Amino acid sequence: MDNPGFRRGSFHSSTSDEDLVEISGATLDFSMTDDVPPLDRDLGEFMSYNGGGLNVPNKMMDFLEEPIPGVGTYEDFNTIDWVREKSRDRDRHREITNKSKESTWALIHRVSDAFSGWLLMLLIGLLAGSLAGLIDISAHWMTDLKEGVCLRGFWFNHEHCCWNSEQVTFEDRDKCLEWNTWSQLLISKSEGAFAYILNYFMYVLWALLFALLAVSLVRVFAPYACGSGIPEIKTILSGFIIRGYLGKWTLIIKTITLVLAVSSGLSLGKEGPLVHVACCCGNILCHCFTKYRKNEAKRREVLSAAAAAGVSVAFGAPIGGVLFSLEEVSYYFPLKTLWRSFFAALVAAFTLRSINPFGNSRLVLFYVEFHTPWHLLELVPFVFLGIFGGLWGAFFIRGNIAWCRKRKNTQLGKYPVLEVLVVTAITGILAFPNEYTRMSTSELISELFNDCGLLDSSQLCDYVNNFNTTKGAKLPDRPAGVGVYTAMWQLSLALVMKILITIFTFGMKVPSGLFIPSMAVGAIAGRLLGVGVEQLAYYHHDWPIFSGWCSQGADCITPGLYAMVGAAACLGGVTRMTVSLVVIMFELTGGLEYIVPLMAAAMTSKWVADAIGREGIYDAHIRLNGYPFLEAKEEFTHKTLAMDVMRPRRSDPTLMVLTQDSMTVEDVETLISETTYSGYPVVVSRESQRLVGFVLRRDLIISIENARKKQDGIVSTSIIHFTDHSPPLPPHAPPSLKLRNILDLSPFTVTDQTPMEIVVDIFRKLGLRQCLVTHNGRLLGIITKKDVLKHIAQMANQDPDSILFN
Amino acid sequence: MDNPGFRRGSFHSSTSDEDLVEISGATLDFSMTDDVPPLDRDLGEFMSYNGGGLNVPNKMMDFLEEPIPGVGTYEDFNTIDWVREKSRDRDRHREITNKSKESTWALIHRVSDAFSGWLLMLLIGLLAGSLAGLIDISAHWMTDLKEGVCLRGFWFNHEHCCWNSEQVTFEDRDKCLEWNTWSQLLISKSEGAFAYILNYFMYVLWALLFALLAVSLVRVFAPYACGSGIPEIKTILSGFIIRGYLGKWTLIIKTITLVLAVSSGLSLGKEGPLVHVACCCGNILCHCFTKYRKNEAKRREVLSAAAAAGVSVAFGAPIGGVLFSLEEVSYYFPLKTLWRSFFAALVAAFTLRSINPFGNSRLVLFYVEFHTPWHLLELVPFVFLGIFGGLWGAFFIRGNIAWCRKRKNTQLGKYPVLEVLVVTAITGILAFPNEYTRMSTSELISELFNDCGLLDSSQLCDYVNNFNTTKGAKLPDRPAGVGVYTAMWQLSLALVMKILITIFTFGMKVPSGLFIPSMAVGAIAGRLLGVGVEQLAYYHHDWPIFSGWCSQGADCITPGLYAMVGAAACLGGVTRMTVSLVVIMFELTGGLEYIVPLMAAAMTSKWVADAIGREGIYDAHIRLNGYPFLEAKEEFTHKTLAMDVMRPRRSDPTLMVLTQDSMTVEDVETLISETTYSGYPVVVSRESQRLVGFVLRRDLIISIENARKKQDGIVSTSIIHFTDHSPPLPPHAPPSLKLRNILDLSPFTVTDQTPMEIVVDIFRKLGLRQCLVTHNGRLLGIITKKDVLKHIAQMANQDPDSILFN
Repeated sequence: MDNPGFRRGSFHSSTSDEDLVEISGATLDFSMTDDVPPLDRDLGEFMSYNGGGLNVPNKMMDFLEEPIPGVGTYEDFNTIDWVREKSRDRDRHREITNKSKESTWALIHRVSDAFSGWLLMLLIGLLAGSLAGLIDISAHWMTDLKEGVCLRGFWFNHEHCCWNSEQVTFEDRDKCLEWNTWSQLLISKSEGAFAYILNYFMYVLWALLFALLAVSLVRVFAPYACGSGIPEIKTILSGFIIRGYLGKWTLIIKTITLVLAVSSGLSLGKEGPLVHVACCCGNILCHCFTKYRKNEAKRREVLSAAAAAGVSVAFGAPIGGVLFSLEEVSYYFPLKTLWRSFFAALVAAFTLRSINPFGNSRLVLFYVEFHTPWHLLELVPFVFLGIFGGLWGAFFIRGNIAWCRKRKNTQLGKYPVLEVLVVTAITGILAFPNEYTRMSTSELISELFNDCGLLDSSQLCDYVNNFNTTKGAKLPDRPAGVGVYTAMWQLSLALVMKILITIFTFGMKVPSGLFIPSMAVGAIAGRLLGVGVEQLAYYHHDWPIFSGWCSQGADCITPGLYAMVGAAACLGGVTRMTVSLVVIMFELTGGLEYIVPLMAAAMTSKWVADAIGREGIYDAHIRLNGYPFLEAKEEFTHKTLAMDVMRPRRSDPTLMVLTQDSMTVEDVETLISETTYSGYPVVVSRESQRLVGFVLRRDLIISIENARKKQDGIVSTSIIHFTDHSPPLPPHAPPSLKLRNILDLSPFTVTDQTPMEIVVDIFRKLGLRQCLVTHNGRLLGIITKKDVLKHIAQMANQDPDSILFN
Repeated sequence: MDNPGFRRGSFHSSTSDEDLVEISGATLDFSMTDDVPPLDRDLGEFMSYNGGGLNVPNKMMDFLEEPIPGVGTYEDFNTIDWVREKSRDRDRHREITNKSKESTWALIHRVSDAFSGWLLMLLIGLLAGSLAGLIDISAHWMTDLKEGVCLRGFWFNHEHCCWNSEQVTFEDRDKCLEWNTWSQLLISKSEGAFAYILNYFMYVLWALLFALLAVSLVRVFAPYACGSGIPEIKTILSGFIIRGYLGKWTLIIKTITLVLAVSSGLSLGKEGPLVHVACCCGNILCHCFTKYRKNEAKRREVLSAAAAAGVSVAFGAPIGGVLFSLEEVSYYFPLKTLWRSFFAALVAAFTLRSINPFGNSRLVLFYVEFHTPWHLLELVPFVFLGIFGGLWGAFFIRGNIAWCRKRKNTQLGKYPVLEVLVVTAITGILAFPNEYTRMSTSELISELFNDCGLLDSSQLCDYVNNFNTTKGAKLPDRPAGVGVYTAMWQLSLALVMKILITIFTFGMKVPSGLFIPSMAVGAIAGRLLGVGVEQLAYYHHDWPIFSGWCSQGADCITPGLYAMVGAAACLGGVTRMTVSLVVIMFELTGGLEYIVPLMAAAMTSKWVADAIGREGIYDAHIRLNGYPFLEAKEEFTHKTLAMDVMRPRRSDPTLMVLTQDSMTVEDVETLISETTYSGYPVVVSRESQRLVGFVLRRDLIISIENARKKQDGIVSTSIIHFTDHSPPLPPHAPPSLKLRNILDLSPFTVTDQTPMEIVVDIFRKLGLRQCLVTHNGRLLGIITKKDVLKHIAQMANQDPDSILFN
């Protein structure tokens, strides 16, 4: 049998550098390889070698525990082997446990090792909570800076500036003398056309300035800091390695630019990027603990918990954060991690609370407590909101993906700074005239969620108070006043603008989250519907559908609840979250009471959106960028067999293998240089094709190189043997090279008749990189994770020429 | 090579009836095989055949889709093959999807099939919620019946009886004329020694009557109805089959006897059994949907959701219920199930709320809202409560397991009725004199959790009101009055009694849950500590530890919160729940504020308890009863290899195999009759030992039987072949029998060098029954789930002569 090599790129599990740089796509700019932050570079050097690992620096010999340095590590843009990583951690754990019986010191080491995970969680929670507080406070201040400046000190935001001012009434509490708009400051006028235009100009100017700063910082210092980061984090958690994506520089730059991007008034939120920030914290803090620094699988457990902490501070919802991590982000999520994630999320939430960025003892601006019960009939409008949310979600995903694809494939992608500036300018110009787009999106959501009290002075609460008694909390439905009608028009315009501009915003080269814009769209739609239903109920309370539960003078409809339900529906339509969405919204409201409307809307929204397109926005972006992500949620439903997927295909030459005791060093080196596969099966003999084990290319190269340097008598004609005992050698033959220690003696195998659905299941659940295929005990071929991904894409008729497969 | 068969019982994956009846142990009384409820028997007949499946009823030929009836089903006390079940469901789904393109009717069928899961969840929620309401109301009434009877109608409980009574003041609202204690009714006296003794006597008499009725009903109609059911449900969800355990009779009898057992005043709760009741609902409702009736894996998804619904109604905690199901009960819990579980849990909670069994719009008696913040220094007593909870949990588990083992191995187990009566009598006699043990345990917990207001008239709130202003909600710490000191003594006695009696109660032949007694123990301890700290702070507010946060006249300590933290700690110590425990307790209290104390106590409690003994009470009972449950949480940490575990062992004869095309019907039948293994590997030839596939004993027997009946010319000398084409036969030879259709062409294989930690992982994650072991491509042996369990037990030095392995 001869081994001329089968189709290039089929065997290796997404390994060779050239091949995988192409995976990157638009969001990952690889010109930045030089910008890997120092901390990560250390790690990188420690764990892998650039350019194929042929240069083993000697200094590493000393401080590595492995017999041959570099064996068992990964290169950048590789998939980790979960089974191997978990085995290594168990070995480490066993060793510590065994040693702990010997001395007190070792026992202390064991205990500290056991608690290091908890300490790490505590640190992550503290750091993530602090950063979230910092971001909240800075963004609040800089958003207000677009409108004016505080004379008491430029570092005060509008609210703090007027905090101690006693010259104003409750109605005008936002207008204090200390706070000057730009027109007041520059031309000492706050009214009139010129003042308006000046304020308009300053608003757009600041927005442009912030945006320019944000995009420049991202471009220069940390290209990975752009976007929401969730698609990449999902990919990383599934076992992919992207060095520097969670590094120190990314953390610093993302924190700064996130504040700038949010303040610039672009239609984006800080919630998604906060997850990225928290994961960066987690990754960086991992370096302090050997247990997590050295093990890719353990580190991913920490990152899952960090993601939970991120959502926890983003929404003030610790339980929701843990469920988000479980449902949306994580890949391998054992129960131990669940418990620790919960701890990290709680610590983060309480850290943020003690910082108290909004001055209301709440973690988010739009926390709300409703008190009026809802009626069963109201489920009809709630379901309508669900349908709207689903439609919007599907529409947004299509539009956004089409635009991102265009950006990637056309000249557009070459001018990211210009793009950001143009979008910021358009957003600013359109936003300023409309009160509801001028304010920050979280404020908008907060106002929309709010249930109008008697003292509320906002336009949205301008109802006609035609009743006599002031019953306190129980406020009956009232007819809308002029202000409400004006607000309706403005909100409708804001809705159209938000819907359109968000499509172009998400995916630009600035940090950008999707939660807040999605929620804003839903909240506007919900509030519009809510006010509509409220007025309908007020003027037509004798209609059969209202009679019986909504008599005159009763408080039946809460427009704020509609806004909240709408927000949940739109968020669900875009992200396809389910339980975590409902729990997050539940934690934002006071009671269990409102779970049912939220659940009805979330379910409808998901069904409607799924009927139009199966993928959520994050999965769509993962596919757009061609990341090697094996979706754990979708069932593989096609009836193909392992033999249809494995390499070599029927028409291809046979599989490239090593024999266990008959190839020379030269043979192996030739094989390595002629092929690019990441590993080779080892068989008893070419004739029998009976499988002995599997050896990784990287380990093989390093070991041979090492042996040639260190071991006497190893020359090109030396026999390499993977057996326990060396084969009988002819006299005067050079000594043979034993490489059994790098041979994986327990490669996973399936038969050629195994249905692909089972193979996909095995890959997912065990986190494999590759699996060997046998027929009647003979080795027949190999299936890599890449082959599986490719096959899934082919079967789904998706992008047959997706980037990954170029 | 010859095949004299290796050690009996090693190869078959816990299959043969004789062997597994022994698994049952004390809690499963197999004399009840005749008592399988009708519904389940139908299913049983449909899905399997008694006595080895040799009698295939002809009538089944018509309505079964499988080519040979019975192939692919399981016998009682067998482990299901998750991979096969999931494959079958995917096949079914594929078929429906393909057909749906053909006609509108098929399309409707597809849509209804997709929504049947949701409908099922709705029904489970409604049924579980209704039953929970029924149980609550009945138990409340019957508990009061022990004290007296309502003259307005015997069906009123004490509270309802006095509901409309206007003759009494607020203080005496429990003492109305319509409600007569037994002494009032029988001898028209409510005071005096004789009246007291009469009430005492009636109390114990009713308790004995209820207990007798409960244990008799369980004995006669549904032996499976006893205990909490959670260990068995865990085992069932992991893939074991116990017919009738979730059947109609179990449901009916468990519902009735649960009410009786709770009312009898025994130290047990209804929360655990409610999970069993909800799972019965789920299982029974599955019969209405083909999709779930026919597929064991799909049915287990439904059961996971039903368990969530059960906890949801037990504690009024839907999110906690889902997390409980995820953390504690379920084995295979895909995200889809998470979402549906949440739906079922919500429906159940709202059904129960609309029934409103406690008249307080809450789902549980001991819902509580605290308003006073806690201080960081209070974490010290909270951690102490955690330590107490952990110690108690470990002590309880040891004591209870020792007692249950004694019950099983001695004469004691033969008199379950007597045992129940004796324990009831002791409980009743000890409980009546003490106010806090006389009341039902949930009422006790409710009172302990309660934060004393000004108007509270209970003994526990008998504080000295030595302040002048009535500030409303803000009540400062006060010195304890005489009532409080009396209550402290009574509570201490109650604590000792509860601790001791619960050990003997849990595991008796009545439905019995552990949550409530555990929480009661913790709540008593917590309240005692809380009052202690409160008085300390009151009298010594100048101590450095109190100064600064607890000045005179401030409300610093909430003893109710201590009770709640103690309850969480004890519950955590017994069950080793983590996230779900905290979330359940969180849903019982008002706000996020109190999560930190709860979490601190739960964490400490788990650490302390784990340090003493690794297993929670449910796992301990699973091991006690020898259920084949492969724990998914514990890591397997020993460094053994597959070759150390596989059968045959080195000294044993070689593996018993079939060849693919050279054995006759007679050869195979001899092999089957001489061995009891549940399946046989098929190899190319004895010499090569190259693996072709795996065939199940049950399928083989049914197919041969079927062929002998239906197929012309199949005689004992016919060759059986598993190949695609029949082997060349000598002239005049009888026609050969092709059995390729029952051959599993994709058996799982590992190499002999695979570490057992990986093998255990594969068994857990993929839900295997058996796995074949190869060496250099040759079949070497087999590892069954039973071998894995046995190995884990051996390595942990646990019960080497555990029942399973006798």
